[in-house]
Amino acid sequence: MGSTGEYESQRRVPVPPSKPFLKSLQARLKETFFPDDPFRQFKNLPISNKFLLGLQYFVPIIEWAPRYTFDFFKADLIAGITVASLAVPQGISYASLASIPPILGLYSSFVPPLLYAMLGDSRDLAVGTVAVASLLISSMLGKEVSPTENPKQYVQLVFTATFFAGVFQASLGILRLGFIVDFLSHATIVGFMGGAATIVCFQQLKGILGLVHFTHETDLVSVMRSVFSQIHQWRWESAVLGCCFLFFLLLTRYFSKRKAAFFWINAMAPLTTVILGSLLVYLTHAEKHGVQVIGHLKKGLNPPSASDLAFGSPHLMAAIKTGIVIGIIGLAEGIAVGRTFAMFKNYHIDGNKEMIAFGMMNIAGSCTSCYLTAGPFSRTAVNFNAGSRSAVSNIVMATAVMFTLLFLTPLFHYTPLVVLSSIIIAAMLGLLDYEAAIHLWKIDKFDFFICLGAYLGVVLGSVEIGLIISITVSLLRIILFVARPRTMVLGNIPNSGIYRSMDQYQIANSVPGILILQIDAPVFFANAIYLRERISRWIYEEEDGLKSAGEASLHYVILDLSAVGSIDTSGISMLEELMKNVHRKGLQLVLANPQSEVMKKLDKSKLIDKIGQGWIFLTVGEAVSACNCMLHTCKSIHVAVDQNAEENKV
Amino acid sequence: MGSTGEYESQRRVPVPPSKPFLKSLQARLKETFFPDDPFRQFKNLPISNKFLLGLQYFVPIIEWAPRYTFDFFKADLIAGITVASLAVPQGISYASLASIPPILGLYSSFVPPLLYAMLGDSRDLAVGTVAVASLLISSMLGKEVSPTENPKQYVQLVFTATFFAGVFQASLGILRLGFIVDFLSHATIVGFMGGAATIVCFQQLKGILGLVHFTHETDLVSVMRSVFSQIHQWRWESAVLGCCFLFFLLLTRYFSKRKAAFFWINAMAPLTTVILGSLLVYLTHAEKHGVQVIGHLKKGLNPPSASDLAFGSPHLMAAIKTGIVIGIIGLAEGIAVGRTFAMFKNYHIDGNKEMIAFGMMNIAGSCTSCYLTAGPFSRTAVNFNAGSRSAVSNIVMATAVMFTLLFLTPLFHYTPLVVLSSIIIAAMLGLLDYEAAIHLWKIDKFDFFICLGAYLGVVLGSVEIGLIISITVSLLRIILFVARPRTMVLGNIPNSGIYRSMDQYQIANSVPGILILQIDAPVFFANAIYLRERISRWIYEEEDGLKSAGEASLHYVILDLSAVGSIDTSGISMLEELMKNVHRKGLQLVLANPQSEVMKKLDKSKLIDKIGQGWIFLTVGEAVSACNCMLHTCKSIHVAVDQNAEENKV
Repeated sequence: MGSTGEYESQRRVPVPPSKPFLKSLQARLKETFFPDDPFRQFKNLPISNKFLLGLQYFVPIIEWAPRYTFDFFKADLIAGITVASLAVPQGISYASLASIPPILGLYSSFVPPLLYAMLGDSRDLAVGTVAVASLLISSMLGKEVSPTENPKQYVQLVFTATFFAGVFQASLGILRLGFIVDFLSHATIVGFMGGAATIVCFQQLKGILGLVHFTHETDLVSVMRSVFSQIHQWRWESAVLGCCFLFFLLLTRYFSKRKAAFFWINAMAPLTTVILGSLLVYLTHAEKHGVQVIGHLKKGLNPPSASDLAFGSPHLMAAIKTGIVIGIIGLAEGIAVGRTFAMFKNYHIDGNKEMIAFGMMNIAGSCTSCYLTAGPFSRTAVNFNAGSRSAVSNIVMATAVMFTLLFLTPLFHYTPLVVLSSIIIAAMLGLLDYEAAIHLWKIDKFDFFICLGAYLGVVLGSVEIGLIISITVSLLRIILFVARPRTMVLGNIPNSGIYRSMDQYQIANSVPGILILQIDAPVFFANAIYLRERISRWIYEEEDGLKSAGEASLHYVILDLSAVGSIDTSGISMLEELMKNVHRKGLQLVLANPQSEVMKKLDKSKLIDKIGQGWIFLTVGEAVSACNCMLHTCKSIHVAVDQNAEENKV
Repeated sequence: MGSTGEYESQRRVPVPPSKPFLKSLQARLKETFFPDDPFRQFKNLPISNKFLLGLQYFVPIIEWAPRYTFDFFKADLIAGITVASLAVPQGISYASLASIPPILGLYSSFVPPLLYAMLGDSRDLAVGTVAVASLLISSMLGKEVSPTENPKQYVQLVFTATFFAGVFQASLGILRLGFIVDFLSHATIVGFMGGAATIVCFQQLKGILGLVHFTHETDLVSVMRSVFSQIHQWRWESAVLGCCFLFFLLLTRYFSKRKAAFFWINAMAPLTTVILGSLLVYLTHAEKHGVQVIGHLKKGLNPPSASDLAFGSPHLMAAIKTGIVIGIIGLAEGIAVGRTFAMFKNYHIDGNKEMIAFGMMNIAGSCTSCYLTAGPFSRTAVNFNAGSRSAVSNIVMATAVMFTLLFLTPLFHYTPLVVLSSIIIAAMLGLLDYEAAIHLWKIDKFDFFICLGAYLGVVLGSVEIGLIISITVSLLRIILFVARPRTMVLGNIPNSGIYRSMDQYQIANSVPGILILQIDAPVFFANAIYLRERISRWIYEEEDGLKSAGEASLHYVILDLSAVGSIDTSGISMLEELMKNVHRKGLQLVLANPQSEVMKKLDKSKLIDKIGQGWIFLTVGEAVSACNCMLHTCKSIHVAVDQNAEENKV
């Protein structure tokens, strides 16, 4: 018994020493905005090294270029050329999705990849335009300025939106707000992408059926109405051609999926269809029989477009809004894709840095006749499969596109639009990730409904509505979790001093005269009143049950606070009211394992003295032992703790 | 060793049996919307009893009236008359705050209290108009229709807003959405009330200085500009009178606070000032020397106003919006006040039922020329102090007001407006709860900033802005808590098998070769990526530290999931990625004490098999023992568990 005093003092739950406000604020801010501690490597270095490290941090190419070898280059060359063969037809197709001239799609595959190669963190990301952002541009800006009636003004607005997207992306990165992208959960993205893919597919009926006029709305009802109100304009030549190409593309995808080595069949297929389609039209003069073709494409590299940025336009607000939406969508897709492939190769991507790279790429792009670029999944997957080793594959791709722009644009004159539609549909069908939706349903119903909400919102409403629905529902889930935390009754696991939820562990036994409750969330204003009522109900029910069973009455209520990570003033008031309620019933409130946050606030509010430091225990087991001891009139609490130690033996 | 097998199987963390989706949904919804289980008492009863109980549930007077005694009535009579003496001047004052005719304030103290006496749950709440809602009405509706130029239309709009407030309140109650009111945290309410009180005080400079024209804006800048732009209209007679009365009112409050038995001095003071002021004006004919008076008040009871509800008005949307805002503010104040006093007397108030009572009272009020009523703190405190025993005190008060309406209205003809301003200022100074703000600062800085945000928002912006700011910041706090959960390194408390945060417990020792981390929040999409990065950094730092110290390298990473109450699909993916990362580094991932939610999803996603059921333990202690055992090549895991049992001994 000699060491009991020392032992007991060891076992007491300590009140953490109070830190100065500014210091704890600083620690908190650091944890919030710099969880990855990017300055770690800068510590204890001379100024010149710090500068070099800083430059390497923001321009990674400086860091890895010296280590670049010829072997790497061979791999990157093959990968880059493969990606370019996909990038050219995809660039033209997605430009038509954004209702802008097809040449802009090619421009966008030239400047941004070069910039990303210097600034980007990912070794596998292939930069290019993305389908969903293209759709968003035409649906959000098309409402403001008609792309057919006012093409010049519309294109200016697209550049302006791209500029603001870049500014927004870079600011998020600089302000370390990258975690905003994390709020687009996997479920949201699956539903959102699926919805956008569905809409894009149905919109392509325009190209497949050779329609000239079409709605600018993106909801399913408007699109279908637009298709079926023009039955007499449907062109069978176009439709037959489109279905054939689509079948070819899907067939190559099927084969490449069966065998990984066939990936290049899939990668080359779009270019093949473009060549086949163009040849077919050229030889049969189908352009004179209702098959629409791309027509003249200007030769030459990107013209500067900085003077086209329409900051004085009356539609500036729409451009800013569109910029923010496409900026965040671009980031979400790009960073998710980058991280996925980085995981395969076991390297790390810094989200905030990546945002700055994306932002710079789009700001530069908006000044060189490019529209929004990000990291499309399809292109990146081809790049990865073709064996890319570094961002040099992006440089190779850009060079190939440059070559195309300088010399090959006339070849696309006869490319039929229906081929582009087939390419888009084939790409979009890959985005319809129904397996992921089934997976969500199996694991987490709530996530499934978030996904479904995003999907239906996009398909039946608009892209923005889908996004707002799913983000709101996602946040509601968090708030609901906190607003309605679970409270569980704990019981003793036989032959041990361990207490666990009686729901989860069938073998756990309740302790006579003692009610042990665990709270499963931080105690905040949003749940303080609920918790007070719910705990009162637990006590009421327990007393009721004991009374009707004729058993011994209740004496102690132990609250296990292990899972209470934080508490606010409402929570403290709740605990105080609960204590008064419990005392009024002639019971004793006992706390087990409060964390430092909770101890600090119990102490500051003086509640710790009202409850009594002696009624706060390190574990539920010790609390139960002490209560049992009091119930059976032990001599002193010291013995209780020793007894508890005995009980801990198996 | 014979029972080791059985023992081990007992100790395994069980996968909860999967429930049918609809059943778990039902349980979840019940816990969310019926946490108090109101149908508990209806179980196993014949239909007729159920009907009676149901009637008693919605009309509590049926339940308690038979038990009502004459002793109770004596107490209620005194309390009711005392409250009426406060209600009459306060009713007239607050009506002027809402820019409506003073008589409406008296009407509002007649019908609603009668209804509340029948439907309400609280025995202490004294029903009447409230200052903040009155201010809100004049600021929100005054923008739409000018109360001076278009008084009739304005009053119709006020009735309509009251009607919608009632409908909104009743619907919240019926739909069991009462918890929405809980989102107005204590900090929000303190700041919001303080801001509103500040604004109301400065607005009363109009009455005190005898100004005729005044701004309808409620922000401080506009109010002060309005006061100081009319320096030449200031009336010194009015100002002197006002300051004298204010001094008198504050003096009585001071004395009544010093000694609880003097509370009636405070209760009677407003009526006294009204009588004194009216006499003074009547005797000195001050109304002819620039002191404005109430003037003629119509005799008679509430006229019906159902036909005045302006459903076809072009300002209907404004009325609905105002109704929702004042409805929720009224509920928040009323329910908080009701619960506070219920706690003193140890009875329970059902929030949702109370909302239905408030709603019915306001719907009925809007049809009988009343505007929004709730449970003002000042009036309820007087009622409580005067010894009320039941809601009958409300009936007494209503009867006294009826008597006033029928016979005494001419007496108010000479009541100077400046007296009303003094009464309002005195009441508002009581709402400026700076002590609560200091308390918030001491206990929880974040709550203090929420409070300050609400205060500054109301004072410098508008009442709505203050409300939006503080609710947004409050919700952000919850989201931030989940988005940036704490991860803590656990260490062993000497001489025990207990593991606690090394930050909190200075005496805790780390275990060589094993990193033990605790996650402090549910793992959701909002924190999955952060947690992955943060845990990777912990592992990196631990390995780095061990390397530089030349100690044994890391072998195991134990995640203590005790505090992880829930997990979504993003969280499961995170765990899977983390496991792969950890395995790639040649380490082993071990889970300790996952809760049923987590176990269920680990099982459904098959992650449990990838991690290995054998690496999931009931406690951190057992996990550490098993790891130690593997490190030091024990014979089998059975021994490890026994060794852990040994360690549990002190």
